[in-house]
Amino acid sequence: MSTAKRRSSKKSPLEEIGAGARARLPDIHPVLVVIDMQNGYCAHGGSYEKFGADISVYTKIIPNVKRIIDACHDLRIPVFYTQQVREPSGIDLFTRRHRIIPRRRLEFFEKNPSCVIGTWDAEVIDELKPTEDDHIVIKRRDSAFQDTEFELWLKSIGADTIIFTGIDTCICVENSFREGFNKGYDVILISDATASSWLKLHKATLEEVRGSFGLVLTTGQLIDMLYTSRRGAAAFKLSTEHLE
Amino acid sequence: MSTAKRRSSKKSPLEEIGAGARARLPDIHPVLVVIDMQNGYCAHGGSYEKFGADISVYTKIIPNVKRIIDACHDLRIPVFYTQQVREPSGIDLFTRRHRIIPRRRLEFFEKNPSCVIGTWDAEVIDELKPTEDDHIVIKRRDSAFQDTEFELWLKSIGADTIIFTGIDTCICVENSFREGFNKGYDVILISDATASSWLKLHKATLEEVRGSFGLVLTTGQLIDMLYTSRRGAAAFKLSTEHLE
Amino acid sequence: MSTAKRRSSKKSPLEEIGAGARARLPDIHPVLVVIDMQNGYCAHGGSYEKFGADISVYTKIIPNVKRIIDACHDLRIPVFYTQQVREPSGIDLFTRRHRIIPRRRLEFFEKNPSCVIGTWDAEVIDELKPTEDDHIVIKRRDSAFQDTEFELWLKSIGADTIIFTGIDTCICVENSFREGFNKGYDVILISDATASSWLKLHKATLEEVRGSFGLVLTTGQLIDMLYTSRRGAAAFKLSTEHLE
Amino acid sequence: MSTAKRRSSKKSPLEEIGAGARARLPDIHPVLVVIDMQNGYCAHGGSYEKFGADISVYTKIIPNVKRIIDACHDLRIPVFYTQQVREPSGIDLFTRRHRIIPRRRLEFFEKNPSCVIGTWDAEVIDELKPTEDDHIVIKRRDSAFQDTEFELWLKSIGADTIIFTGIDTCICVENSFREGFNKGYDVILISDATASSWLKLHKATLEEVRGSFGLVLTTGQLIDMLYTSRRGAAAFKLSTEHLE
Repeated sequence: MSTAKRRSSKKSPLEEIGAGARARLPDIHPVLVVIDMQNGYCAHGGSYEKFGADISVYTKIIPNVKRIIDACHDLRIPVFYTQQVREPSGIDLFTRRHRIIPRRRLEFFEKNPSCVIGTWDAEVIDELKPTEDDHIVIKRRDSAFQDTEFELWLKSIGADTIIFTGIDTCICVENSFREGFNKGYDVILISDATASSWLKLHKATLEEVRGSFGLVLTTGQLIDMLYTSRRGAAAFKLSTEHLE
Repeated sequence: MSTAKRRSSKKSPLEEIGAGARARLPDIHPVLVVIDMQNGYCAHGGSYEKFGADISVYTKIIPNVKRIIDACHDLRIPVFYTQQVREPSGIDLFTRRHRIIPRRRLEFFEKNPSCVIGTWDAEVIDELKPTEDDHIVIKRRDSAFQDTEFELWLKSIGADTIIFTGIDTCICVENSFREGFNKGYDVILISDATASSWLKLHKATLEEVRGSFGLVLTTGQLIDMLYTSRRGAAAFKLSTEHLE
Repeated sequence: MSTAKRRSSKKSPLEEIGAGARARLPDIHPVLVVIDMQNGYCAHGGSYEKFGADISVYTKIIPNVKRIIDACHDLRIPVFYTQQVREPSGIDLFTRRHRIIPRRRLEFFEKNPSCVIGTWDAEVIDELKPTEDDHIVIKRRDSAFQDTEFELWLKSIGADTIIFTGIDTCICVENSFREGFNKGYDVILISDATASSWLKLHKATLEEVRGSFGLVLTTGQLIDMLYTSRRGAAAFKLSTEHLE
Repeated sequence: MSTAKRRSSKKSPLEEIGAGARARLPDIHPVLVVIDMQNGYCAHGGSYEKFGADISVYTKIIPNVKRIIDACHDLRIPVFYTQQVREPSGIDLFTRRHRIIPRRRLEFFEKNPSCVIGTWDAEVIDELKPTEDDHIVIKRRDSAFQDTEFELWLKSIGADTIIFTGIDTCICVENSFREGFNKGYDVILISDATASSWLKLHKATLEEVRGSFGLVLTTGQLIDMLYTSRRGAAAFKLSTEHLE
């Protein structure tokens, strides 16, 4: 699937795509989804920090996620938060079923289950606290779509495009945008409002989005695009530069 | 989620995982899945080659996939093939619904749809031709699970572990193992029996499997493990080395 | 959807629903689905007849289903056919997994599997033969939605309403409209273009549709409604009479 | 699909089924599910009663459901409760998406949404209050499987058989057992621990279960069967009489 030659051509297929997409994008019906920005993963005193993890890789995106949430509230773009939870009974631990399971999954979820439903650990962090108009999606597995009402709600409000922020880029965010794209939703990933404890893999995920799933934008580019798209004009001119 | 310190400890959590898993693994009920090894992507005269793509990155894994299929037939491990297809009507093209869509997806599937159902292009390549005892899963999207009977069949035969081979590592293989793991199946990815047109991303995917989803083995290691696991013994001693 | 004024009128809540719905219905984007009208169930020489079943209860609806298909072709309403199939290997037999299983399911599918994929038995009957513009959904279980690409295709063409015809009213048709309604599609069941080998249960299913899922119309009423709805006017006036 | 002749034969297929099933049934891994026994539907002061509905048809099964829950607790059979809920925002109302919608659905859910999440109305009734060992499944649509973690949990504990109790027989219970059967779970419906506001349709549903999905037992028969099945012996002798 090497497209190296085409990339050097004068009139690239990219421009053609851009041309086609540009005309339609002023009509997008986007939602914002904030994946798993919970105390257990991102707050001092949460279970990840207690476990000895360095949560700064996650906390550093909080200001950008906040800026995006504020813009969406301002523009009346629906905001969804996912909360990854576990039952007190342990019925939903990976270790209840899996026998081949990476240490990372085992340590966090078996010895010291994080984000048990109903606890402070499972709640969205204070800095990003949902308002009454926002929507909460409770999930048990990586994807925001798996075994949740997320798609039912997207249908209910007629959404066609999902803006992804939150953590971890390579696990829950990635499973969510892969499933979302394949279910027919357009995908926009915000490079500096998502984070992974594996920096190298975070970058690989951005490349995969650009190459196979959708747009990668920075927080600034997204906010710019959202405001301009409301006024019709040059909305997608910006974004096609970020699509491979 | 930095676990750097733990890695240097004498009794690593990895060994504990291995210890737990080792005892249970002789009982695995694995299936092999061969993802999208079709004429359209891997054969001379197929639609990818016609389009100008260099298919050698895909064809070079054929011998390894063949060795694994042969071993599975020998050991009576069920073999599944996926076939990515498109309707002649175009109803299932990504471009029918998506407005943000990377060039890669657009070019191959819109201008020159590959693997139209019922054509030679959609068939599994001759070198890996399914036998009457093998199973075919027709799919329309990236994951072998999405909108297919794959899981129903896994349940029907009581499978709990899926060995992934085929293409493309970072798209259809990756969506499949991510969804498979999250549905409760143990995941084994074969590093030299999967391939991606993006070499760098292929390696990133291997790291993600090791870190978050399951085992990465070579063809030789897998075949070794499959034969020894039938005899009880040291089956998983080998494999835990390849799990993070 | 403000119906405040109407609520104070003498008219019954039923009429209020009709009033609210009437205004919106000229815009419906319907598809027709023809469930399981295959040789195995409806043709002389098919597996049901061979087994000794009286297929006349199924064959008698063929003329009505044909009239509806013709009208849909005329009006360019997309037509989908489902085909219930079984693998030659038997991997998808109910009896492979179930231990509590009614005789009806056991006899037909275990001792003499009907509609094996690729055989004449599995094909749609000649009288209703799909054209090249129609769509085929291969399924393994009762619902047209389960493990199939049906919803992906509905999304692709922007459909919001499903007209159900075919067999058996109480099994495959019923599972399909129950799942369809709950996924957000409006449901219309055609009373004399569906059939069940259990007449009493056929009637119960009609009542359940009226009471909980959608419209029940006759073939004549549907065709009338489809043509008038194209011209705006009184389309739904007719149909609300058939909604509880 | 008339099977009249076979019914009069000396050695009926039913007995053969029974014979096959009997040998395997002492090994069943059942769970109990109690569908939607919430204040909103079954309690004085709940939204259904406020709306003017006669809830006695639902309340009369409470003692039987309680007996079954107690037996399951005694026998350490896992107990699941579903809670049908609605968001305060109304995003999950049927009326947000549907345009063809029966009055019953419209009245209860639009004008006076029942069982809003987090309210007393949404809680399980006091008489059947879940213990800490029981499991709660929050759902938005009719089926206990749709968009919920129910199947993940069934897999986690290795369950293969689902005992259905609760309300309404013809809507949420029925969608649940239809989907459960088709996903590969054995189905047992308790005739006097389920209820419908439509008595005639309740009976039709029982017939459909017997004919196409699984066992129909009374509360007494179930409890008898559960206790005897723990001791091996005649467990299924009883139950095959209730399978068509």
